[in-house]
Amino acid sequence: MEIERKFLLKTLPDHLDSYPVRFLEQGYLCTEPVVRIRKDNDKYELTYKSKGLMIREEVNLPLTQDAYEHLKTKADGRIISKERYMIPYKAYTIELDVFSGDLAPLVLAEVEFPSEEEANAFIPPEWFGEDVTYSKDYHNSVLSKK
Amino acid sequence: MEIERKFLLKTLPDHLDSYPVRFLEQGYLCTEPVVRIRKDNDKYELTYKSKGLMIREEVNLPLTQDAYEHLKTKADGRIISKERYMIPYKAYTIELDVFSGDLAPLVLAEVEFPSEEEANAFIPPEWFGEDVTYSKDYHNSVLSKK
Repeated sequence: MEIERKFLLKTLPDHLDSYPVRFLEQGYLCTEPVVRIRKDNDKYELTYKSKGLMIREEVNLPLTQDAYEHLKTKADGRIISKERYMIPYKAYTIELDVFSGDLAPLVLAEVEFPSEEEANAFIPPEWFGEDVTYSKDYHNSVLSKK
Repeated sequence: MEIERKFLLKTLPDHLDSYPVRFLEQGYLCTEPVVRIRKDNDKYELTYKSKGLMIREEVNLPLTQDAYEHLKTKADGRIISKERYMIPYKAYTIELDVFSGDLAPLVLAEVEFPSEEEANAFIPPEWFGEDVTYSKDYHNSVLSKK
């Protein structure tokens, strides 16, 4: 089970380059349910996510690089590339996704929570903008098609 | 974890039509690891299987009919159609797959076991033929490409 909230930003946080960063590339074979392939630095994964906005079931399965490259040819729409910065904030970690390619300059912040109560009680930092948790428009599966 | 042995047949068992049967259709998006889509009567599934012959890790995830039909267009090679008869035998169930389409008249019997010891100790019925557990040729993922 994955419980998370998603936000647009007003501004980028200070010293972004000081935080750990990963390079993600991902594509979608299906969007309902989500069947996603992802390259995460040097790791390759197939991910299945059930329907849902704030709360979703998620299963991650390992792929080889060959399997990833093979499945990538089957992806619908665009392959998404982004840098993901991991920014500690109170008890949480903000995952800040800076999109490259034709989705730039989109930036999205995601925060994962251990419970729905904590997710609803979360007070975002000053530099967060609009809460888009309940907007399908910012699902990466939807962004892959725009 | 799935532990199973697979056999060709000498003859079909008597009274085959008296056993429960399901209609399976399946295709492969990837073979190593296996990423399979399957229609099982009216149920649709995405299955992931790790590498291996007798022992494999298996994860089954639900699909909608629309998702199945969408992913089916991405399958490599042929879509496999078969009837699966469930035949009780001692403490086990023989799954007897009767292939249709251009794989006919192929028939394969599979038996699943709770442990490797039981798998190795299994004495097949008289009507079983060659043990092809360790032959990749009879993996459905390989049959999808022939």
